[in-house]
Amino acid sequence: MSLLVVGSVAFDSIRTPHGQADEILGGAATYFSVAASWFAPVRVVAVVGEDFGDRHMRVFTDRSIDTAGVERAPGKTFRWRGEYKGDMNEAHTLETHLNVFEQFAPKVPSSYLESEYVFLGNIDPVLQLHDRQQLPRARLVALDSMNYWIAGKHAELLKALAAVDVLVVNDREAKMLSGNANLTRAAAAIRKMGPRILVVKRGEYGANLFTEDSVFSAPGLPLDEVQDPTGAGDTFAGGFMGHLAKTGDLSESNLRRAVIYGSVMASFAVEEFGLGKLLRLNPQLIGERFAEFKNLAHFDA
Amino acid sequence: MSLLVVGSVAFDSIRTPHGQADEILGGAATYFSVAASWFAPVRVVAVVGEDFGDRHMRVFTDRSIDTAGVERAPGKTFRWRGEYKGDMNEAHTLETHLNVFEQFAPKVPSSYLESEYVFLGNIDPVLQLHDRQQLPRARLVALDSMNYWIAGKHAELLKALAAVDVLVVNDREAKMLSGNANLTRAAAAIRKMGPRILVVKRGEYGANLFTEDSVFSAPGLPLDEVQDPTGAGDTFAGGFMGHLAKTGDLSESNLRRAVIYGSVMASFAVEEFGLGKLLRLNPQLIGERFAEFKNLAHFDA
Repeated sequence: MSLLVVGSVAFDSIRTPHGQADEILGGAATYFSVAASWFAPVRVVAVVGEDFGDRHMRVFTDRSIDTAGVERAPGKTFRWRGEYKGDMNEAHTLETHLNVFEQFAPKVPSSYLESEYVFLGNIDPVLQLHDRQQLPRARLVALDSMNYWIAGKHAELLKALAAVDVLVVNDREAKMLSGNANLTRAAAAIRKMGPRILVVKRGEYGANLFTEDSVFSAPGLPLDEVQDPTGAGDTFAGGFMGHLAKTGDLSESNLRRAVIYGSVMASFAVEEFGLGKLLRLNPQLIGERFAEFKNLAHFDA
Repeated sequence: MSLLVVGSVAFDSIRTPHGQADEILGGAATYFSVAASWFAPVRVVAVVGEDFGDRHMRVFTDRSIDTAGVERAPGKTFRWRGEYKGDMNEAHTLETHLNVFEQFAPKVPSSYLESEYVFLGNIDPVLQLHDRQQLPRARLVALDSMNYWIAGKHAELLKALAAVDVLVVNDREAKMLSGNANLTRAAAAIRKMGPRILVVKRGEYGANLFTEDSVFSAPGLPLDEVQDPTGAGDTFAGGFMGHLAKTGDLSESNLRRAVIYGSVMASFAVEEFGLGKLLRLNPQLIGERFAEFKNLAHFDA
């Protein structure tokens, strides 16, 4: 089934203990859609500038990602410069130039209106709610957010949360949003705000899924080397939503598998700078890594 | 099969965001042996002072723990005062009075010499190696250590490590011991130092088991409230070694179950101050919590 993502497209300049890269293609919508494209047909709503060339657009079209919703605006594409140090659990932002993204008013093309699976990337919650209301046929709508909106547009974010099915955030954001430092209580509070499904990303420690019936803990895959964590969260969301859109199955057991597919894709993302590895995957590699997660977490009663 | 622990017995004064307790019975050997006593017969080697009364000793004997190796020395029992703040992931030591523990020279009684499962709690690695050499019948010897010995008695610790089967440490200690910030590489380096089995405790994030064949990731159980993390690591070790001593099975699948039993016992330990909950357990409660861990981690391929 069709999967729609609304979010940023950017050029990232990244430095990590393992190297650096300048002005490489990134952004939430980019990582999400490339990851999800291994599972289901993906449609993107985003904005790029005049400096966004054909070779950048081909990264999407080569993965059969529908770019009818990618608007080209006068000016430059969103740019982000960041650095990771030590254990690389946190990005230190050095420069942000929103450029054309500053005036981003997402336009959902008519050809996207039937989309059943929707991911509202981390943008202004007013826009997230507006987009959500344009998609009445959506069967599952997931939303990402961050500290900036949690603090600065709290009331607007609560309205958007009341209109979605899934919230995907990291553990610090879940604690901040709920005002509760205990993750179990934070999850219960957030589920009362609207999303019946909460996915909490915990970086190298894996991810948790909170639903009405249960809690699921997905492990983090121990990796020999993390090159670049940029985009791991959006890549996770892409694998998660991609698997759900592919299968159309929202059962508890399939939500758990979706969390693992999200973890699988994120584990590939961090092994190389930028989109590197995500563009060279195949179903067999994805299946083998899923099996690695199974072996990592399995024990007999 | 019989399980021997060498380690500290202390009176702890603890403050956490949820309350405080003064001069309550604690110490590594205490938490370990009470936890392990739900699985197998336990023998303790430790030292206490003249202020250690019958009611304290009964905490051990009521759990049928063999105290023939608990030496009573002139002076006062080891005292520790500490505080936990915020997310309670780290103890802040306010006061340490080693007292009789300062001159602790562990004596293994002749009645203990046949012990097959041995846990060398966090003490001077010179003493750990000495104890290990007194126990030629040991089938599985596990060792705990800490930053103090890793930095201050590195060469001695390496000698002790070369003589044991299992190292149980937390993730910071594993990275410090190996000099590698990547846990996968740290584990490989540590396994070359001697222990063929490495268990890495990660607090609320669970635990990892590294063996020759594979890596296992045990989840942390999300708890509504953590009252007091004191002793969680030694309690974990008690459940882990207790299950192995009970079953006598050192297969990969049983080592994984042992990590879960360690996690089960640690999850009980932190729910109340001190030994509180660990003294009121029963096999049914332990079995139910094991099933909770199974449900928490399970997904279908």
